[in-house]
Amino acid sequence: MNITILGGGGFLGRKVAERLAASGELGGRPVTSLILFDLNAPAPLDAPFSVKCLGGDVADLPQAAIPEGTDVIFHLAAVVSAAAEADYDLGRRVNLRGTDSVVDACRHLKHPPRVVFTSSVASFAGGQDAHLADDARQMPGNSYGAQKAAAELILSDASRRGFLDAVNIRLPTICVRPGAPNKAASSFVSSILREPLLGLATTLPVPEDFAVWIASPAFATAWLLHAATLDSALLDGDCGINPPGISARVGDMLDAMERARPGTRSLVKAEPDAVVQAIVGTWPAAFAASRAPGLGFVRHGSLDELIAEFLLNDLEPTRRMRGM
Amino acid sequence: MNITILGGGGFLGRKVAERLAASGELGGRPVTSLILFDLNAPAPLDAPFSVKCLGGDVADLPQAAIPEGTDVIFHLAAVVSAAAEADYDLGRRVNLRGTDSVVDACRHLKHPPRVVFTSSVASFAGGQDAHLADDARQMPGNSYGAQKAAAELILSDASRRGFLDAVNIRLPTICVRPGAPNKAASSFVSSILREPLLGLATTLPVPEDFAVWIASPAFATAWLLHAATLDSALLDGDCGINPPGISARVGDMLDAMERARPGTRSLVKAEPDAVVQAIVGTWPAAFAASRAPGLGFVRHGSLDELIAEFLLNDLEPTRRMRGM
Repeated sequence: MNITILGGGGFLGRKVAERLAASGELGGRPVTSLILFDLNAPAPLDAPFSVKCLGGDVADLPQAAIPEGTDVIFHLAAVVSAAAEADYDLGRRVNLRGTDSVVDACRHLKHPPRVVFTSSVASFAGGQDAHLADDARQMPGNSYGAQKAAAELILSDASRRGFLDAVNIRLPTICVRPGAPNKAASSFVSSILREPLLGLATTLPVPEDFAVWIASPAFATAWLLHAATLDSALLDGDCGINPPGISARVGDMLDAMERARPGTRSLVKAEPDAVVQAIVGTWPAAFAASRAPGLGFVRHGSLDELIAEFLLNDLEPTRRMRGM
Repeated sequence: MNITILGGGGFLGRKVAERLAASGELGGRPVTSLILFDLNAPAPLDAPFSVKCLGGDVADLPQAAIPEGTDVIFHLAAVVSAAAEADYDLGRRVNLRGTDSVVDACRHLKHPPRVVFTSSVASFAGGQDAHLADDARQMPGNSYGAQKAAAELILSDASRRGFLDAVNIRLPTICVRPGAPNKAASSFVSSILREPLLGLATTLPVPEDFAVWIASPAFATAWLLHAATLDSALLDGDCGINPPGISARVGDMLDAMERARPGTRSLVKAEPDAVVQAIVGTWPAAFAASRAPGLGFVRHGSLDELIAEFLLNDLEPTRRMRGM
């Protein structure tokens, strides 16, 4: 299998690459080469197959990023929510032109490759009362979500035409994200667990009964890898997948943390933030996700498992990253 | 009111322009200037206000097409279904890049203009059993529909950001189209009425109980004009409108024609065409269109009125156009 990861320097791209390096295979077939592409060439990766790290603009993809013989493309390159809202042109360039550029690269290949595209829960609207069906309309309330939904349409059409073979995974909010808090409205979803587990105080901008649709990095990675070799005939012309995340109330997330590390819950101080609430209040709190399990996407684990995964995989790297 | 019609040389663009020229007003306010823009500069138009006819590429809009002070843009410029299917790059350029270009032109204006965008029933899937709700998901089975649905997302987001103020009208199949038959799969929907009314024989590629979602040119034009001055606050963040067309069985269309001009029905010969049936069989036969009437979009008239409208407005021009 010849694989390219666009956005291979990002947090999820790296997780996918590391999983491939650890197993040496994808869907039971050996990996022969991996190309990691990002704005800046990603750091080298130890692997039992050839790894090339390339830097460049996804909206103007060099041929070397998707060479003849590419079997699978993970298209994770994106300008994320807060950034796409702050810089409309940049978001449009990367999230839309970048996707067109992937389509064009695929049109030059002899065999249409699988394209695993990360779309997002941000492409839907709904709020706390939502329990969205698999065929719910995408009515994004932010530029990132609009660009992701438009890119899904472009990739689905390119699939129908035989240029490529797309699977569009609408990822939930990822939690616990390693690293540091950022300015995204969703930053608190990870911060309320990560910061106390690092021994740091943090604030909760929403009520404790506020529910979020989330997935851990390991489950998100497993879904992306599964999507890479799924038989697309099973999709019956609908390449958009709402994977089986979990709908969790933040109070329950804090309780799970307290069970894992007693004393951490008291580090979280309620500090209602009307601006954050106005944004995150439009996100759908739950999806039915009834189709994905039948297609082989594993069901998400419990909140306790999500906390355990962070402690096991990402706590120490986060400490190192933050010089703690 | 300063108005621009992109696609002003096309069939619907011309109808809109003629209605403006006849009334001299839009939504009760006098029209002061009209710009007709198309790939080739549209033919001049007699009007009680200034009319400029410009030629150019909608994906690379000259500033003169949407100058400072523009109040309303009718964005009808498109590469239509059969053409977008035949030439992927051309469809993408006009239908997607063209829309981005409209967004960018609007961002340079002091006041966000109303943009009336013609989207299409082709952006939905469904088939003969469909009766699509206003919030149905757009799952296009053709590149034209995919590009229209993606353009809707881009315009809705640009609206939310305040660059413009969009109303996206998903037009039904227009019937009776003046002119000549063409290679579009939908061509028969007009041909089965237009050709016999011109005294010519034609064929029916689908069964008589096959239903289509249609609108006459006059109703489509009325909806576009209404959309131009509608209070967009009433849209509540959802700028996509399924206007109240009619779902008609082709047998009933032929009966209405026979009532208007006895003897015409026998000019239509059944000639089942599996290729045409495969394409048009995926089009939704009916929409609920429950929201539009409350927003002031007039309900469509009967099939008898649709036939009468063609006889009154378009039969003679079609004869002349075809040198008959």
